[in-house]
Amino acid sequence: MSQITESGDVPDDHPTTGETRPTIARDRLIAAAVESFAAKGFHGTTTRDIASAAGMSPAALYVHYKSKEELLYLISRSGHDVTLRLVREGAASSDDPVEQLLAVVREFTMHHARSHTSARVVNYELAALNPEHHREISAVRRAIGQEIRQIVEAGVAGGVFHTSNPRMSALALLSLGVDVARWYREEGEWSDEDIAGHYCELALRIVGAHRRVTQTGDAMRSPLRS
Amino acid sequence: MSQITESGDVPDDHPTTGETRPTIARDRLIAAAVESFAAKGFHGTTTRDIASAAGMSPAALYVHYKSKEELLYLISRSGHDVTLRLVREGAASSDDPVEQLLAVVREFTMHHARSHTSARVVNYELAALNPEHHREISAVRRAIGQEIRQIVEAGVAGGVFHTSNPRMSALALLSLGVDVARWYREEGEWSDEDIAGHYCELALRIVGAHRRVTQTGDAMRSPLRS
Repeated sequence: MSQITESGDVPDDHPTTGETRPTIARDRLIAAAVESFAAKGFHGTTTRDIASAAGMSPAALYVHYKSKEELLYLISRSGHDVTLRLVREGAASSDDPVEQLLAVVREFTMHHARSHTSARVVNYELAALNPEHHREISAVRRAIGQEIRQIVEAGVAGGVFHTSNPRMSALALLSLGVDVARWYREEGEWSDEDIAGHYCELALRIVGAHRRVTQTGDAMRSPLRS
Repeated sequence: MSQITESGDVPDDHPTTGETRPTIARDRLIAAAVESFAAKGFHGTTTRDIASAAGMSPAALYVHYKSKEELLYLISRSGHDVTLRLVREGAASSDDPVEQLLAVVREFTMHHARSHTSARVVNYELAALNPEHHREISAVRRAIGQEIRQIVEAGVAGGVFHTSNPRMSALALLSLGVDVARWYREEGEWSDEDIAGHYCELALRIVGAHRRVTQTGDAMRSPLRS
């Protein structure tokens, strides 16, 4: 948010990145919309609120975006795309369900802590999307859920995870991560790293991660972490 | 919400419970406020929305409540009081941390599934309370957190729970339960009982609940559930 003059005017071009004026204006409006939606909800926010937080007139907003709903959709799409990408990268990082789970839970947790303001908008304002956008975003959410579920199911099939309900356990993993966006505060006692570290331990417990350990001739199971 | 006539008039007295007309009107306004706040957020809801959903005029609302914020406060206070009571009842139900944990997680989860609409208002609209009300509700929230933490810490002290961070594990237990209010749907595949049952298993894993089992002369630990 550099390069914004006192009067709120946007300079023609960003001097260091070469971004053009419309790009900067669009980014400013998105950033203002995230803050407003997070603070007052989609329905409690007017386009005037967003424009004025971005230092523009309401008319200027409509040069860049069709509607308040379009802003919500773009915020939601971008947030879900980031989450899907990090979940897929975590899944692709190893062939071992334990390592996959740790990578996904770590990145998912860190993301919901660091981006807690936009993550609240992304997760709590879904009902305000128009039907077409809602269907599109729901498909991305299902894809995110499916990635986690596949890791848990692969671990169960491979005998390294033990849970009576893999699908509900996968949902619980997602749920824990999403809810970080609700309670996380920068000024809190735990950093995003602290939370991600402990949540990795909890994730292994939630899926019942055990490795076969041969001891005194018997195959027995011992917890990976205790 | 029986005994409301087609025209939206409230009869003088409730014929079966003996509730008086002002009580019924007040309850109707609270119920309408819960629905409106859950659907459009506190800031997206007007007193006119609430009054009209309750079949009253905006002026009639002010006969019963000072402001929209007073409605939010009363919904929030009532929701938090219910939660604190069920958590305390669970804690008082046994001397055994395992049984206490199971009772608390079961009731907490069921409550957030069954009352998911009001629970979303209670948990996601805190920032809209005025400073005095916010302080009061925050104190109840701390008391709820403290009950769960004490159970986890007692279990660790007694050697039945094993976790590297009892406080963060206690927070994760609360977080899982609260987030049920976000994703639970009556038409979903799992009932509130299904979810509470599985979440009890997960809770034992999250706190690392083990009991000492003597086997072939050695003291070893085995998971309570696997």
